[in-house]
Amino acid sequence: MSAVEDLSRRRGGREARRALRSRPIPMAEAAVRPGMLGGQYKPLTDADMQRIHKTALKLLETVGLAQAIPSCVEAMTARGCWMNAQGRLCIPASLVEDTLASCARNFVLHARDPKHDMEPSGNRVYFGTAGAAVHIVEPETKTYRESLLVDLYDAGRIVDNCEHIHFYQRPVTARDMITGHDLDINTMYACLAGTEKHVGTSMVDPAHVDECLQILHVLAGGEDKWRERPFVSQSNCFVVPPMKFAEDACRCLEAAARGGMPVLLLSAAQAGATSPAALAGTVVQAVAECLAGLVYINCVVPGAIAIWGPWPFVSDLRTGAMSGGSGEQALITSGCAQMGHFYNLTVGSAAGMCDSKLPDMQAGYEKGVTAGISAMTGINMLYESAGMHASLLGFCLESLLIDNDMLGSINRNVRGIEVNEDTLSLEVIANVCIEGPGHYLGNEQTLALMQKDYVYPQISNRMSPKEWNEAGKPDIVERAAARKREILSTYYPEYIPRHIDEMIRAKHDIKLPRSVMEPGDPRWA
Amino acid sequence: MSAVEDLSRRRGGREARRALRSRPIPMAEAAVRPGMLGGQYKPLTDADMQRIHKTALKLLETVGLAQAIPSCVEAMTARGCWMNAQGRLCIPASLVEDTLASCARNFVLHARDPKHDMEPSGNRVYFGTAGAAVHIVEPETKTYRESLLVDLYDAGRIVDNCEHIHFYQRPVTARDMITGHDLDINTMYACLAGTEKHVGTSMVDPAHVDECLQILHVLAGGEDKWRERPFVSQSNCFVVPPMKFAEDACRCLEAAARGGMPVLLLSAAQAGATSPAALAGTVVQAVAECLAGLVYINCVVPGAIAIWGPWPFVSDLRTGAMSGGSGEQALITSGCAQMGHFYNLTVGSAAGMCDSKLPDMQAGYEKGVTAGISAMTGINMLYESAGMHASLLGFCLESLLIDNDMLGSINRNVRGIEVNEDTLSLEVIANVCIEGPGHYLGNEQTLALMQKDYVYPQISNRMSPKEWNEAGKPDIVERAAARKREILSTYYPEYIPRHIDEMIRAKHDIKLPRSVMEPGDPRWA
Repeated sequence: MSAVEDLSRRRGGREARRALRSRPIPMAEAAVRPGMLGGQYKPLTDADMQRIHKTALKLLETVGLAQAIPSCVEAMTARGCWMNAQGRLCIPASLVEDTLASCARNFVLHARDPKHDMEPSGNRVYFGTAGAAVHIVEPETKTYRESLLVDLYDAGRIVDNCEHIHFYQRPVTARDMITGHDLDINTMYACLAGTEKHVGTSMVDPAHVDECLQILHVLAGGEDKWRERPFVSQSNCFVVPPMKFAEDACRCLEAAARGGMPVLLLSAAQAGATSPAALAGTVVQAVAECLAGLVYINCVVPGAIAIWGPWPFVSDLRTGAMSGGSGEQALITSGCAQMGHFYNLTVGSAAGMCDSKLPDMQAGYEKGVTAGISAMTGINMLYESAGMHASLLGFCLESLLIDNDMLGSINRNVRGIEVNEDTLSLEVIANVCIEGPGHYLGNEQTLALMQKDYVYPQISNRMSPKEWNEAGKPDIVERAAARKREILSTYYPEYIPRHIDEMIRAKHDIKLPRSVMEPGDPRWA
Repeated sequence: MSAVEDLSRRRGGREARRALRSRPIPMAEAAVRPGMLGGQYKPLTDADMQRIHKTALKLLETVGLAQAIPSCVEAMTARGCWMNAQGRLCIPASLVEDTLASCARNFVLHARDPKHDMEPSGNRVYFGTAGAAVHIVEPETKTYRESLLVDLYDAGRIVDNCEHIHFYQRPVTARDMITGHDLDINTMYACLAGTEKHVGTSMVDPAHVDECLQILHVLAGGEDKWRERPFVSQSNCFVVPPMKFAEDACRCLEAAARGGMPVLLLSAAQAGATSPAALAGTVVQAVAECLAGLVYINCVVPGAIAIWGPWPFVSDLRTGAMSGGSGEQALITSGCAQMGHFYNLTVGSAAGMCDSKLPDMQAGYEKGVTAGISAMTGINMLYESAGMHASLLGFCLESLLIDNDMLGSINRNVRGIEVNEDTLSLEVIANVCIEGPGHYLGNEQTLALMQKDYVYPQISNRMSPKEWNEAGKPDIVERAAARKREILSTYYPEYIPRHIDEMIRAKHDIKLPRSVMEPGDPRWA
């Protein structure tokens, strides 16, 4: 008799199920894991993708990109690019094809803790945060306040506790940092203090990249160790759509590539404003721009680790404002994801945003629709998939926790339906119908699959109306807020041990108070 | 110069865009319409579908269905079925194949107003309500109250005002109806009083089916007119899973088929309780049961109009309670939809439900994830896609309006990305980059596509945080409640004119007060 059967017979069915559910199971047997295989949703046909590819190549050859910096011009013209009469850097199709044939693929994105390493290639899907929101949403008071450095540390600690958020890219701008230098150094530091999952961040000056690298060498235990397992990537908006290089970002890109820091080659147009209103045209432009970025970085450092980030947004064309929660957003994100598969590149894009200002029903459906559909493409890195509001202007820690439940549910869909002799269940059905009790409640298969096939939410509520009423009508946002406070007041991982912290603070202007990084944090005293 | 250009040059860009947006455009040019073509999401492989099909056939032959009523046994054994030693009706694969070769396909589901007719075949997708909730959710007071007959009329009027809800199946049980007779007659009547979209309803006794048909003949202007354009379908749970006929429902099924009423052949198991916990097994059983129903109805009335409804739900295996908002729900609904395409049948199933008790963020993401993903399969009829809460125990009129926005956004995804010379936008991009203003805001393409390619929500809010703050932080549920009151207190379509109503009331016990069907409705006085 199996342990499951045994347990089931000795106890009542319901109690047995609860007991089984509460037993920890190995991650390898969990219903969902990071990097499940998606790809069953294909909004573009093969012919569509070919046309998008050819149009993008033509754009790169005939329109090119404006404002290339000298080092970019030098590196790229050495490989066959040319400046046209309008001073735009044009890229021949042959160089794009050569780059696609030789660029880095199938790389690991490391985390400080190897258990969080990601392999974002093929149809493997990972969910994470991102953004540069300037506000923290406080849903209990329905207010927006300025986002601060400490919020990055707090959000990191929450992400560290969210099973279905697999990486942590900086979601807010720390508005209490006065200089670009303080912002860049401290953003990275605060993120790393909060989580050992892979961290993404951004930098505005190549000197800051170099300083960040110095810190990373210390944290890694030396430059060689850092280069072996780089656990921070640089989110880089190297292009100002349409088709124009961003000069400072390009300098940071080169510094990152030289320093062994993976980059996210991010093109963030807005359809109808900085890319065509036609959705296919927006995908074309994003593809062209990100191919340009890929060529560029490979001209500077051949084989540099780069996440391909065609990452267009949607405009509400009545006002010109961004609408990250629109249905159109899921479409262009999905189209870009598919183009990433077309090139067999590691592709990241954005979904799970919303236009709603608060964690309400609008926020929920906007996130659910856009993240749910986009994830089915098998996109490798789904950025902005947790916590964002107001089309990226607001970030909410409560939503981060609710979105974690949503992403678990989406990840179950990424995993899909396994069809095999066991799951087809012919014998199980026959037994239940002919000899059995006429239901599957205490069935061995049911007990065995309870945790291996089903995902359970942490914050969301599945009570019946009666139970819910008797429990005092628990509110989803209040529950999330309580969980947030619980994590922030008790969870102090020592990801930057005191002696390392002191070494770093001695050389760099670290603004995150050490006191908030340890129990006794005065904010919760 | 086009009218668009002309308008654009004469007015300021933003004003022009607003003006353009507010001009009505023909439905044929709208960004989304009923019956968009989906099907780009395929969770099952061809091999998976073959195995599911073969396993279902084997189940029908070897396990069969219990509790067949005499007329069913007679009709089906006459076509080669047999009763096995356990008294179960077994169906040979050959009869299933013959039925699949000859059953009704590519039929229209009519509406009283032909503009709402549906053609639910191929990959065309339609969204609608359904259910038998016993509560109305009142979100402003966070309470659940008993659902009443008048709620069916009210919900119908709201559906009539929801662009993206294409049919109206009765979502609640009218608990003020004492007898099954009163329930069946009045449920249908109240639904028809509220909307001219296609109505689905349910009946518990074949005598009620006959009486409903009498009423329908009057409304249609004669039995021949009714049979030409039947605008009410019968949602029929002919099977009690696993693999057991529901006797009363079977009698109603036969009466409907004889009366020319389309039926929804609905198998509503719950994975882990009344179907296997293994998701593939749940799909197998639902497929087998619905194939049995299809054979049955075609034995009784060859060519009867039937929507194929493998409609399994999910259990939370910790408690055995239903979890309509789970990620697993989207998977099994999607798998069933794909099996419908495998057989080239008109397929309907359920998604867009939620476990949340209120229209909150949990409700939003549960609905968005499940309806969004399932719709991408190209499912023909997506039932339960609006208004439902608490895993079908509660129905909310405010959610109906919010879900309408969600379904518009999902429908935009069903439509997909058109890739052609125009949408690829090579020239548009080149012009904007080289000669143009460097953005697409006033571009002719942008103005032309504003309404044709983009969907705008009615209740959801796309303001910036600043605008939202200045507007007094509008709340999504309050906005929906206000819109609900506006519709219910002003919208009195005369779908059952007074003289017809009087004729019907003279013969049938119609409980919906005539007073609520006309302006002056005492509820809003």
